[in-house]
Amino acid sequence: MTDTNEIQRFELDADADPAGLTYTFGGAAPVASLTPGTVLSTWTMDCFAGRVRSTSDLVSQVCDPRFINPQTGPFFVEGAEPGDTLAVHFRSITPRTGRGASTTVPLFGALTATAYTALLHDPLPERTWIYEIDPVAGVVRFDALDSAYQVDLPLDPMHGTVGVAPALGEVRSSLAPGDWGGNMDTPEMRAGTTCYLGVNVPGAMFSLGDGHARQGEGETCGVAVECEMDSVVAVDLVKGAPPTAWPRLEDDGFIMTTGSARPLEDAFRIAHSQLVRWVCELTGLSAMDSYQLVSQAVLTPVANVVDTTYTVVAKLPKRVLHGATVMGGMHDRLRTASRT
Amino acid sequence: MTDTNEIQRFELDADADPAGLTYTFGGAAPVASLTPGTVLSTWTMDCFAGRVRSTSDLVSQVCDPRFINPQTGPFFVEGAEPGDTLAVHFRSITPRTGRGASTTVPLFGALTATAYTALLHDPLPERTWIYEIDPVAGVVRFDALDSAYQVDLPLDPMHGTVGVAPALGEVRSSLAPGDWGGNMDTPEMRAGTTCYLGVNVPGAMFSLGDGHARQGEGETCGVAVECEMDSVVAVDLVKGAPPTAWPRLEDDGFIMTTGSARPLEDAFRIAHSQLVRWVCELTGLSAMDSYQLVSQAVLTPVANVVDTTYTVVAKLPKRVLHGATVMGGMHDRLRTASRT
Amino acid sequence: MTDTNEIQRFELDADADPAGLTYTFGGAAPVASLTPGTVLSTWTMDCFAGRVRSTSDLVSQVCDPRFINPQTGPFFVEGAEPGDTLAVHFRSITPRTGRGASTTVPLFGALTATAYTALLHDPLPERTWIYEIDPVAGVVRFDALDSAYQVDLPLDPMHGTVGVAPALGEVRSSLAPGDWGGNMDTPEMRAGTTCYLGVNVPGAMFSLGDGHARQGEGETCGVAVECEMDSVVAVDLVKGAPPTAWPRLEDDGFIMTTGSARPLEDAFRIAHSQLVRWVCELTGLSAMDSYQLVSQAVLTPVANVVDTTYTVVAKLPKRVLHGATVMGGMHDRLRTASRT
Amino acid sequence: MTDTNEIQRFELDADADPAGLTYTFGGAAPVASLTPGTVLSTWTMDCFAGRVRSTSDLVSQVCDPRFINPQTGPFFVEGAEPGDTLAVHFRSITPRTGRGASTTVPLFGALTATAYTALLHDPLPERTWIYEIDPVAGVVRFDALDSAYQVDLPLDPMHGTVGVAPALGEVRSSLAPGDWGGNMDTPEMRAGTTCYLGVNVPGAMFSLGDGHARQGEGETCGVAVECEMDSVVAVDLVKGAPPTAWPRLEDDGFIMTTGSARPLEDAFRIAHSQLVRWVCELTGLSAMDSYQLVSQAVLTPVANVVDTTYTVVAKLPKRVLHGATVMGGMHDRLRTASRT
Repeated sequence: MTDTNEIQRFELDADADPAGLTYTFGGAAPVASLTPGTVLSTWTMDCFAGRVRSTSDLVSQVCDPRFINPQTGPFFVEGAEPGDTLAVHFRSITPRTGRGASTTVPLFGALTATAYTALLHDPLPERTWIYEIDPVAGVVRFDALDSAYQVDLPLDPMHGTVGVAPALGEVRSSLAPGDWGGNMDTPEMRAGTTCYLGVNVPGAMFSLGDGHARQGEGETCGVAVECEMDSVVAVDLVKGAPPTAWPRLEDDGFIMTTGSARPLEDAFRIAHSQLVRWVCELTGLSAMDSYQLVSQAVLTPVANVVDTTYTVVAKLPKRVLHGATVMGGMHDRLRTASRT
Repeated sequence: MTDTNEIQRFELDADADPAGLTYTFGGAAPVASLTPGTVLSTWTMDCFAGRVRSTSDLVSQVCDPRFINPQTGPFFVEGAEPGDTLAVHFRSITPRTGRGASTTVPLFGALTATAYTALLHDPLPERTWIYEIDPVAGVVRFDALDSAYQVDLPLDPMHGTVGVAPALGEVRSSLAPGDWGGNMDTPEMRAGTTCYLGVNVPGAMFSLGDGHARQGEGETCGVAVECEMDSVVAVDLVKGAPPTAWPRLEDDGFIMTTGSARPLEDAFRIAHSQLVRWVCELTGLSAMDSYQLVSQAVLTPVANVVDTTYTVVAKLPKRVLHGATVMGGMHDRLRTASRT
Repeated sequence: MTDTNEIQRFELDADADPAGLTYTFGGAAPVASLTPGTVLSTWTMDCFAGRVRSTSDLVSQVCDPRFINPQTGPFFVEGAEPGDTLAVHFRSITPRTGRGASTTVPLFGALTATAYTALLHDPLPERTWIYEIDPVAGVVRFDALDSAYQVDLPLDPMHGTVGVAPALGEVRSSLAPGDWGGNMDTPEMRAGTTCYLGVNVPGAMFSLGDGHARQGEGETCGVAVECEMDSVVAVDLVKGAPPTAWPRLEDDGFIMTTGSARPLEDAFRIAHSQLVRWVCELTGLSAMDSYQLVSQAVLTPVANVVDTTYTVVAKLPKRVLHGATVMGGMHDRLRTASRT
Repeated sequence: MTDTNEIQRFELDADADPAGLTYTFGGAAPVASLTPGTVLSTWTMDCFAGRVRSTSDLVSQVCDPRFINPQTGPFFVEGAEPGDTLAVHFRSITPRTGRGASTTVPLFGALTATAYTALLHDPLPERTWIYEIDPVAGVVRFDALDSAYQVDLPLDPMHGTVGVAPALGEVRSSLAPGDWGGNMDTPEMRAGTTCYLGVNVPGAMFSLGDGHARQGEGETCGVAVECEMDSVVAVDLVKGAPPTAWPRLEDDGFIMTTGSARPLEDAFRIAHSQLVRWVCELTGLSAMDSYQLVSQAVLTPVANVVDTTYTVVAKLPKRVLHGATVMGGMHDRLRTASRT
């Protein structure tokens, strides 16, 4: 928890050989080092690595399955040790261009047979939608493919993927979410939110990517309004706190826990049991009192039901915590710095 | 779709033999008949049938398992035929007393072994919490059992259970949710919401109960802030529309679908596939365009992960429907009548 | 546990109005009374109520969804009270004709989208297969529809459905399995097996149906080799034993428990936790010792992954029980009587 | 598919620094190279890395979580390329000592809360059982901890873990099963069985470990009768066949597919859809005919419901294939060689 607040720019090289980009959490050499307290300014490619540019670009034709969902990173965070908690505060997340893309992908999504929900159906039709992004009006425009229907949806930029290297020496695809973070695909990962991630390896090895101009809760078809992002994130360390077993989030109004698992009720159970225990720590409530309070006060938006495991978020209004200090006040500090 | 708007009072007899109350959807004789367009004014017992009155009343000691979650009804809706859709608009839902109760129940809830998630653990501790309800301040007060912690939560009255007789001659416990409605336990079932239920038998046989002064999304411990309710509901029929396969809701801002199933992803799949198809009907969008639009615009709060099957709600802002007429304008009509 | 061993014939009236047959567990008036110890000789219709007679008969065209899976029964078992256990020993199960039928059914089966795993795919093709049954050779003949492939499979007659009236006043479709038995669809329900069912209502209200000339474990496509059966079952009561929470089976080599739930791991958990507890009762082992012994000795065939809930069977060789007396020796007694 | 049939011995160094052993699939340097056709003779440590030696050794006290389930390997198979299929035929699997160990492990197993099925219960008691292994009598002896109960179970040695490096650059813990094989924990992986694994990286990088003197189907408590094994395996390559998406097995009587996923029904769906497609390839049956034949002829034992994902096996009697040549006759060739 230093206070450099120095801005460090990292420029992803989009012209590099795709094989040289990062598609995993763990297993990649760091692209740069960050001092805790640094503000990182960088950009991220879209999940298609820029290959989907028009409604005639189909993922199965233009994308190489080895090069999906490239991440910016990993960054070696100086001093980060297993047991620490990494704090990543999103100052701003801004689409880099005026266009986003969404698609269906064969055997991927919540309302289709998949590689795991393995059925005998043929894949659903493969289609691509292009969204105009209007940052001034604050909208993205849905343009139907099979009729003239158009509708504007609120622009709500976020990162689908943020994480650190996993434990036990594992290396996980950037398509997977888990206790290391990764592809959680929750719209809560927007500017103004702080994400807390348990550190598993020296340096934490933090990456981010998969920018979404917006997404619905559940990411039903498996793909959001995908776009390149300019993002500014403050990166810091929480030392000496209880380890963070699963990613947590905090914004001005809520503390949030996440769980990523299948079946979806296990994701729910993880998020809620984490929240019950966190509230015990923050308030001194007994486990059963915390269970009761959470039961009446929680919001539970589904994040995604499409990735290799599913993600659920549990949100508790900070108001019920009576001013308890969360993660040593990290969010408030980064939030305030962000505003100045 | 008549327009009587006549108010009909039905008085539940709380002093009756508990064995004479209604604990199922289907299988019970009607308590009264309603003409479509009638406004029903009635009250509902709490899910404990009034047996939990203090923190020393434990469910396993004071409640008879045969007499849990009594319903007010069933009501025979005149003219309702299989294939029709019953519309139930909640005008007001008001706690009848200044107190609500919540409890843990052995082997019931989301963060415990249950009869289905059958493990070798002993049950969690059984406890009872009593909430003061302050309708003027619009709050319910959580009072911790093991410490002095108190916190007010917003009063947000709703019905956990509303439904009709199931199809195929089934009779289902009022603890179960399903395509007939039943124990869906979603906080969306509040005043101002219209619930649409597919009719399976002549007269629909509509009941309601399980009032909650409020609940969190997921109803984590399995029990909300349970209380007796005074409720006023307008009951009407939608004839000639496509059958309503799963309960749907509508309020001023959203259309909503529900799915009740296990695992939880199947509840999600039901709600979302129902929503995709409904949007096709309302907008003329193709299935794939509707899938795409829903994917970016939907909200997906979990309703419950504790009942015999779990419930998920999918919510779509009406704004994206460009003014499409939903269920023949039923909600708007009942809503307007409700305000006058 | 009487010893009449008297044979009582019940003749199902196949020419009756289909609406007069029994399609539920619970909710139907008894067709006859049985004294415990009686041997019931009867026959059962196939699950299609006889409507599928050739490869051109498609279920969606020839069957009325209200009249699927008719049961023979219910039988009122004299003296049966809630808390007792009903024993149903299958003496013989014999196909009544030389033909069986299997089909796909739209949106039904393990490798297809269904009403619960609700996806956007069109249904798989609907097809019907007719099997020749050769009781002398002991085979059923698979005859491919799209090529000349033929292969004989062992005849292994069984009942997919056997059960009693459910608890809590519920009435359940004969398509559903659960703690009352019902549509468990396990090949273990063959001649020589005794099925134990917990009694929920006076008279137990026992029914059986859904004869299969054979089925694979999981009943993958949702439909076995369906045929009419002549069946002889000895029906008796176990009084004074611990209640039977979920159906259990016993044959000469194994004790078996069943669990019916979703997701499939919950069915597994029910069956295995029931088995662990049963072994404690039978051997005096502690819970943890029983857990360990079951873990190393159990067989776990999947029964069905297609019905409204799924069923798993856990089988333990009796040899590891060192001669413990199971259910008061009921199976051995009925088995011996059956042989004489 | 060469024919060296040469025996190559690899000696695991048990005295080495535990940190130098292999605990992952992928991510480790090869310990040796194998020419296709080689017979590998080696041994494997038990899953506890030898730390559990008596009933007083509790896993949480004696084991380092980083060093659980060490594998022997990886072996670089010369000429193996992505898209090939690796064949691993188990000639013999022999316990190295006269003792095996089983345990409960806190928050691990099928009948307990876990890190994913995250509940508020305390862990179940942690216990350790030691089994005597008698290779002459062919039994392992269960010795109860809390009473004098003893019972012999058939010795049935197998490997819980066998696999190759995963796709997409992933590195997976040896505790996880998946499409790369890994910790599938099926008793079918015994001597006489051939395991087929799709190759994802040059050299395949094959490892094996986790010997079980026996296990029940489902590995209910999460731990089998764990022991060191002397194993002899013939390793060969299938070139030019359709890629093997999920591990397959073959013995003298059956072809088998595996699926590893959560929920358990997805593991079932993978195994069965793989089997349906395999039968199409082997017999020329149409997809629907194959679906039908599999539905009536398959056996479906659960493998494990305890690991990070669950595994189901689908078994089809070869007899129904009318002599179709499986994987170019690989099993028959290796089996015959094994006998000479």
